Amino acid sequence: MAKPISVSTRAKPATPPSAPSRSLDVFPNPAPERDYVIQFQVPEFTCFCPLTGQPDFAHFTIDCIADKLCIELKSLKMYMWSYRNDGAFHEKVTNDILTDMVKAINPRYIRITAKWYVRGGIYTNVVVDHRKKGWKPAPKVDLPQLGPETGMLG
Amino acid sequence: MAKPISVSTRAKPATPPSAPSRSLDVFPNPAPERDYVIQFQVPEFTCFCPLTGQPDFAHFTIDCIADKLCIELKSLKMYMWSYRNDGAFHEKVTNDILTDMVKAINPRYIRITAKWYVRGGIYTNVVVDHRKKGWKPAPKVDLPQLGPETGMLG
Amino acid sequence: MAKPISVSTRAKPATPPSAPSRSLDVFPNPAPERDYVIQFQVPEFTCFCPLTGQPDFAHFTIDCIADKLCIELKSLKMYMWSYRNDGAFHEKVTNDILTDMVKAINPRYIRITAKWYVRGGIYTNVVVDHRKKGWKPAPKVDLPQLGPETGMLG
Amino acid sequence: MAKPISVSTRAKPATPPSAPSRSLDVFPNPAPERDYVIQFQVPEFTCFCPLTGQPDFAHFTIDCIADKLCIELKSLKMYMWSYRNDGAFHEKVTNDILTDMVKAINPRYIRITAKWYVRGGIYTNVVVDHRKKGWKPAPKVDLPQLGPETGMLG
Amino acid sequence: MAKPISVSTRAKPATPPSAPSRSLDVFPNPAPERDYVIQFQVPEFTCFCPLTGQPDFAHFTIDCIADKLCIELKSLKMYMWSYRNDGAFHEKVTNDILTDMVKAINPRYIRITAKWYVRGGIYTNVVVDHRKKGWKPAPKVDLPQLGPETGMLG
Amino acid sequence: MAKPISVSTRAKPATPPSAPSRSLDVFPNPAPERDYVIQFQVPEFTCFCPLTGQPDFAHFTIDCIADKLCIELKSLKMYMWSYRNDGAFHEKVTNDILTDMVKAINPRYIRITAKWYVRGGIYTNVVVDHRKKGWKPAPKVDLPQLGPETGMLG
Amino acid sequence: MAKPISVSTRAKPATPPSAPSRSLDVFPNPAPERDYVIQFQVPEFTCFCPLTGQPDFAHFTIDCIADKLCIELKSLKMYMWSYRNDGAFHEKVTNDILTDMVKAINPRYIRITAKWYVRGGIYTNVVVDHRKKGWKPAPKVDLPQLGPETGMLG
Amino acid sequence: MAKPISVSTRAKPATPPSAPSRSLDVFPNPAPERDYVIQFQVPEFTCFCPLTGQPDFAHFTIDCIADKLCIELKSLKMYMWSYRNDGAFHEKVTNDILTDMVKAINPRYIRITAKWYVRGGIYTNVVVDHRKKGWKPAPKVDLPQLGPETGMLG
Amino acid sequence: MAKPISVSTRAKPATPPSAPSRSLDVFPNPAPERDYVIQFQVPEFTCFCPLTGQPDFAHFTIDCIADKLCIELKSLKMYMWSYRNDGAFHEKVTNDILTDMVKAINPRYIRITAKWYVRGGIYTNVVVDHRKKGWKPAPKVDLPQLGPETGMLG
Amino acid sequence: MAKPISVSTRAKPATPPSAPSRSLDVFPNPAPERDYVIQFQVPEFTCFCPLTGQPDFAHFTIDCIADKLCIELKSLKMYMWSYRNDGAFHEKVTNDILTDMVKAINPRYIRITAKWYVRGGIYTNVVVDHRKKGWKPAPKVDLPQLGPETGMLG
Ligand SMILES: [Ca+2]
Ligand SMILES: [Ca+2]
Ligand SMILES: [Ca+2]
Ligand SMILES: [Ca+2]
Ligand SMILES: [Ca+2]
Ligand SMILES: [Ca+2]
Ligand SMILES: [Ca+2]
Ligand SMILES: [Ca+2]
Ligand SMILES: [Ca+2]
Ligand SMILES: [Ca+2]
Ligand SMILES: [Ca+2]
Ligand SMILES: [Ca+2]
Ligand SMILES: [Ca+2]
Ligand SMILES: [Ca+2]
Ligand SMILES: [Ca+2]
Ligand SMILES: [Ca+2]
Repeated sequence: MAKPISVSTRAKPATPPSAPSRSLDVFPNPAPERDYVIQFQVPEFTCFCPLTGQPDFAHFTIDCIADKLCIELKSLKMYMWSYRNDGAFHEKVTNDILTDMVKAINPRYIRITAKWYVRGGIYTNVVVDHRKKGWKPAPKVDLPQLGPETGMLG
Repeated sequence: MAKPISVSTRAKPATPPSAPSRSLDVFPNPAPERDYVIQFQVPEFTCFCPLTGQPDFAHFTIDCIADKLCIELKSLKMYMWSYRNDGAFHEKVTNDILTDMVKAINPRYIRITAKWYVRGGIYTNVVVDHRKKGWKPAPKVDLPQLGPETGMLG
Repeated sequence: MAKPISVSTRAKPATPPSAPSRSLDVFPNPAPERDYVIQFQVPEFTCFCPLTGQPDFAHFTIDCIADKLCIELKSLKMYMWSYRNDGAFHEKVTNDILTDMVKAINPRYIRITAKWYVRGGIYTNVVVDHRKKGWKPAPKVDLPQLGPETGMLG
Repeated sequence: MAKPISVSTRAKPATPPSAPSRSLDVFPNPAPERDYVIQFQVPEFTCFCPLTGQPDFAHFTIDCIADKLCIELKSLKMYMWSYRNDGAFHEKVTNDILTDMVKAINPRYIRITAKWYVRGGIYTNVVVDHRKKGWKPAPKVDLPQLGPETGMLG
Repeated sequence: MAKPISVSTRAKPATPPSAPSRSLDVFPNPAPERDYVIQFQVPEFTCFCPLTGQPDFAHFTIDCIADKLCIELKSLKMYMWSYRNDGAFHEKVTNDILTDMVKAINPRYIRITAKWYVRGGIYTNVVVDHRKKGWKPAPKVDLPQLGPETGMLG
Repeated sequence: MAKPISVSTRAKPATPPSAPSRSLDVFPNPAPERDYVIQFQVPEFTCFCPLTGQPDFAHFTIDCIADKLCIELKSLKMYMWSYRNDGAFHEKVTNDILTDMVKAINPRYIRITAKWYVRGGIYTNVVVDHRKKGWKPAPKVDLPQLGPETGMLG
Repeated sequence: MAKPISVSTRAKPATPPSAPSRSLDVFPNPAPERDYVIQFQVPEFTCFCPLTGQPDFAHFTIDCIADKLCIELKSLKMYMWSYRNDGAFHEKVTNDILTDMVKAINPRYIRITAKWYVRGGIYTNVVVDHRKKGWKPAPKVDLPQLGPETGMLG
Repeated sequence: MAKPISVSTRAKPATPPSAPSRSLDVFPNPAPERDYVIQFQVPEFTCFCPLTGQPDFAHFTIDCIADKLCIELKSLKMYMWSYRNDGAFHEKVTNDILTDMVKAINPRYIRITAKWYVRGGIYTNVVVDHRKKGWKPAPKVDLPQLGPETGMLG
Repeated sequence: MAKPISVSTRAKPATPPSAPSRSLDVFPNPAPERDYVIQFQVPEFTCFCPLTGQPDFAHFTIDCIADKLCIELKSLKMYMWSYRNDGAFHEKVTNDILTDMVKAINPRYIRITAKWYVRGGIYTNVVVDHRKKGWKPAPKVDLPQLGPETGMLG
Repeated sequence: MAKPISVSTRAKPATPPSAPSRSLDVFPNPAPERDYVIQFQVPEFTCFCPLTGQPDFAHFTIDCIADKLCIELKSLKMYMWSYRNDGAFHEKVTNDILTDMVKAINPRYIRITAKWYVRGGIYTNVVVDHRKKGWKPAPKVDLPQLGPETGMLG
């Protein structure tokens, strides 16, 4: 132990706690000359079922090819949090979040995948996308799909 | 324990039990302006083999691009349950369920994947789809397939 | 194709279909001089929930150290099938099946593991066992747990 | 399609929505003569971090050897839901839930495993248990651990 | 135990044992108006290596888009069994089985994938297909590939 | 290509093919002063079901603490092959193979795990062991169970 | 979209950035009357190899049965960060971190598992533990190990 | 044990050991009328790094659509072995092996995937292919990708 | 032990430690006549978050179709190391590394996939690519995707 | 790109290549006051089969509780390399390596697990251990086995 350790007591942080918010912060795309993909995986999403009044849970994946603007990570967290006390049907809320994202950054392309937790023994997934008018993806270069190799047995 | 806990005895619920039914409830597609995918995974399906009279089990996946109507989740459960006492060949029942779904919501596209439990040492899967006349999928944007990343070793 | 292939049309089998039955066939343990384990995994089990009237599904595992008698495989299938139209609570039916098995073969040891499909977002598993009076397991030889090795990358 | 399908429109259910509740329903243990294990897995749990005011998520596993009483599944769901708007430290809330369960059913043994979602790049798990005074587990019969075998390549 | 259990002794079945046979039973395609896929997975296949005289093992997958006829499951089992005492090179026998299937049901499309167990430290797989003259697949609708989602941690 | 490649035509090997045999070759244990474990995994085993006359398949694992003799690998292959045309019940044949191994090398300890392919929708596993009279395992040193770590995401 | 979305530009946060620190914050154990386990998994650890001067990476797991004090999560992050510019041998740094933890909270029991990324084709793991003088674990209740069950095929 | 077991002592085999060889045996394609795929997976490959003089290890996959000739399995093993004492850069040796294969069988199409074990913390994979002049693949029939289904929980 | 073992004490290596460097060594493409893929997986990358001042970790995958030059493995390691003390936004640094690679070897095609460790409960992945002006990929030959097969149960 | 990139040509390293060696470097155990575990996983091991003259491959795991000395990582690599041209039976070479390790560091405890690649369709694993006379492991503290949790669906 080159450096000695010191021990103290946990204290409340000075910063006031962050809060949920139906707003999104953005920043300029650092490479607008390229079509490239930013993917967010958001495993912590919850809202209410409008029919039964019970909480629903989902895992969201957002794939985005930005144009002039990108979505800032921390505000995305606050935005997803803002649904916590809302009633929302699976199909509608996934579409609504897409619409909000488009409004915020007007991307070349965006796809939202919502995987809802099982209800009534049935698993529901919803996948919605939007492409900017006039934008076309460059023809994809098809690379071999290679898993993370290890040299380990098994 | 801020809130004290109370304990009571289990009682029968007042609502009469739900029942299987060869009917499907529908609701208006909340985003008919978009082609988007709703996927249901139904792991609990059972019927009878018409040849041997023995129960069969299957896992159904339903992928759907709705048009004007969507299938309501709870009625889907009751519908799948309605096959419990029917005799049904693997290939035919998968096609029949597709036909029923098309009749109920007339979707732009629907695909049904039925994975039947092993019989005679052989695993049988059946995949059926239907597309609405005149409907064409938008050319797909090919995103990189990224698994759920974690930062965990292993 | 050394041997030529012939093609015919599917016909109904002559044997009448087998039927569910709350009975179990047994046969003499071929090695009663040893304590050894027979494990059955039964992924196809369904009954009804007495509260809601809806079908339940479960996966059963039966681990058994037989004494004088063993359970015959086909009758086990018919026996498990016999619950298909019964109302049965998770905890009770798992205990009842154990009691039936003990009655049928009076084994040195038996353990039943029932993994019930998710209900209300909660996964329930029940594990029950029984050991014959006076029977004691030999002290176990602790072998290294080695997975199925392959020499394959990944 | 032996039975014709009918199609109707989704309606609000007549039953009022269920509600969260810091109470637990119980029922008599159907097999008190045995020590057996009931396991609940509850993947949908959320509360608040008292320090940052942000939502936390966790996956709970409850392993229980009941004595005179068992916990009823639906009330367990309502009970877990009741933490949704509470501030709760990881270590304390896991202990509190254990204390509540003990109060409700006074089991022979209970263990609670809470797996909290990553915070600050660190994954926290808390495992708490309680055993009834004077209760001792029967010496365990050590069975071979066999995975779900399939006969499938790969 | 609502229904009492009865116990009897294992007896030989009356039906004579089934036998391997280089023949295939067929039945009319129940949905010839659609192009749909029937997949059989056959993990139990064994023959002999003509060079070394030793047994070989393989896992076969058969993907088929039927035309007028389908292959009956039980006869498929007998057919695959019929290779048990034949000498057969990996590449040739996979092609021969394809040829037999085409002869039996003349499908719109069929693909056979044979995964042979390791020999000399090398794993060999053979994939053969056949399409009916004039048949063309409908352009495929590219759905998102979603794994079986669960809401479970891990 | 430093070394040029040459190409020739496949020829039948001079050695006569090996043959199945109900015999086992042995060799002196190279480290009889230690209790250590040799594990064989044999995925290629097939015999016949005496009741139905149909082929059965199994995966055998043999864990052995040798005494004076070890089992030679190639003769083990021939030995397992020798069951190919025998009728054999799951429970009995697993016990018989254990008895043969004990006769051949009289080991300090041996365990045989047979995982049979699914029949009638049920998966059967049989685990049998034998310990030499008077032999006791040294108390095991309990090491942490660490998977093959990689540093790879995912 | 019940609530309209607002969009703003990313700004630097007011709080000064946190910093690495060889100190640990602690708080009183909320349940000192029980022996229970707190596990931290820390996938983000890096230091330098004293021999080669190159960066090393590791994944740490800390299992702890606290006594009077617990380790606070955020300070743990800062503490692990403090090794970023240190030279540290695998075996020594794992022991040093254990010593520091013991100094900070004097736990009943603590175990540290460090899984180092591959070097020279070899994967190194180090597992160190410490138990308080006089402390003994209660005999463990051996529960069945049940994976997260889903009811999904595959 | 219907057949008694006999036990003998391990002897050296009469055949001289096989040897590595930069040559490949070929045989006539048994189905040249079809484009079909033969895949070899070769997990046992080792050579030397020309820069450091240290052994390298790799896993090779060879996918081939043969024309008039196929590669014989045993000679492939000897061929891969022949690199054991060669110095070979990752990129070059993968290309050289492709060139040799093309020389040996002049296939319609061949692809070689080499997955090299980690060096310096980095995993390198090389994928090379060759297609015969004038050869074009038939448009592929896109089948659903179905994993090996089992009916097992988990 | 044919060869006796000798034992000595660890000494510091004579070579000075290697150092991070914003430079890349290159070497001539050994097979410029082909379009082939070189993939590097780099699991050890760390830099700083410019907003919070805290360390970030990522796993990089680099897929490259070289033209005249290839990237040398060891210098790639040093290059990736050179970001260890830099502040770098996820989106920008992934683009910058692509730009550097293009400057160094001007490849026909290159794709960089950066998988960043979770921050604020959200997982971010960035995928950027570049293709040389005028270069077009040859139409890909679509081979069946076969996993590493083993013949092992499970 | 704050720092500009420079590009140079690959050169041979000045240091002479390292060499295989039947010797092991050691260093003083940095924490001899504790019993702790060091695990090495060595996926790159190859030698020759004395019977057939063909190369064998294995994956070695070494678990060690050191006493006064530890094994140095780089010399371990050279030591394992030294078997590359030796003939060695599976059972004997695993025992010999254990004997060498004991001679080199005389540990409190050491276990060697060798997983050999498949030969003749059979997978062989050998596990050997040694404990110092008079050394006894402290009774193990049984912690819950928790996998790497993530909060990700799936
Ligand atoms: Ca393994
Ligand atoms: Ca691992
Ligand atoms: Ca592997
Ligand atoms: Ca892989
Ligand atoms: Ca596979
Ligand atoms: Ca496998
Ligand atoms: Ca999960
Ligand atoms: Ca997990
Ligand atoms: Ca990982
Ligand atoms: Ca992943
Ligand atoms: Ca499953
Ligand atoms: Ca599957
Ligand atoms: Ca499971
Ligand atoms: Ca398998
Ligand atoms: Ca298994
Ligand atoms: Ca999934």
